[in-house]
Amino acid sequence: METRNITEVDYFKVIDVLNDWWGGREMKHLLPRLFFEHFQSTSFIIEENNNNLAAFLIGFVSQTHTNEAYIHFVGVNPKFRNKGLAKELYKLFFTTVQELGCNTVRCITSPENKMSISFHKSMGFSISNGTNYAGLGQDRILFIKDIAPKK
Amino acid sequence: METRNITEVDYFKVIDVLNDWWGGREMKHLLPRLFFEHFQSTSFIIEENNNNLAAFLIGFVSQTHTNEAYIHFVGVNPKFRNKGLAKELYKLFFTTVQELGCNTVRCITSPENKMSISFHKSMGFSISNGTNYAGLGQDRILFIKDIAPKK
Repeated sequence: METRNITEVDYFKVIDVLNDWWGGREMKHLLPRLFFEHFQSTSFIIEENNNNLAAFLIGFVSQTHTNEAYIHFVGVNPKFRNKGLAKELYKLFFTTVQELGCNTVRCITSPENKMSISFHKSMGFSISNGTNYAGLGQDRILFIKDIAPKK
Repeated sequence: METRNITEVDYFKVIDVLNDWWGGREMKHLLPRLFFEHFQSTSFIIEENNNNLAAFLIGFVSQTHTNEAYIHFVGVNPKFRNKGLAKELYKLFFTTVQELGCNTVRCITSPENKMSISFHKSMGFSISNGTNYAGLGQDRILFIKDIAPKK
């Protein structure tokens, strides 16, 4: 397995498999190419040695709150689940954005996504309910984690 | 008319009218709340004095190419079209990102969006064809403009 920063070309690899990884759900609209172009320094991909896509993480540093980083999207190939790849990507993201001056990481998920909620708990995120967060009737679960280096 | 930086709360104002402004087309998925949270310093809104939404622009500085800025989304209330509001928002974006060290602005549109192509030409953008830019059969028109201060 090789982990590296994401590139523009990875966009095509990812959208090619994205709906399959989500069990046929239409997900591509959540991941426009701009994320692969403009947030490469904080976005990562893991591949098998034969270039087979295993996992990816798309994140960025907030330009409103420059001490905060945001994880927009994480995907793991169903063939490579429960091997710690998402955890590896999160840890890499934490150290990367710490070096860029961040002390806080945020992300969100849907209330239905129990796997995501349990994963974020295991990664030490605090959880709150975002009622109507994405519009009326569009609740979200909000995750926040303090990543300030311990003194 | 008042022009100001966008806030998180503006997300609800915008998604409330977005599909109407696009003639009923489903557009909300292109504009998740994260853009209103994390790119406030380079995103702007114009309102009538009674808080009626007239226009908005969502943009950011590329974190891959820190000399480049990207305009993701611009909307003008149909009641306020052809009054120069989009032009005003673009000019404000240019001066804002110039001060943040950018010398280049990029954005994209669909080949069908003749109004957008003609607007960007009038704003001095150069145009190229992005064949299969957003996936197979998903062509885009790519705009680029040099905004380096003239010496």
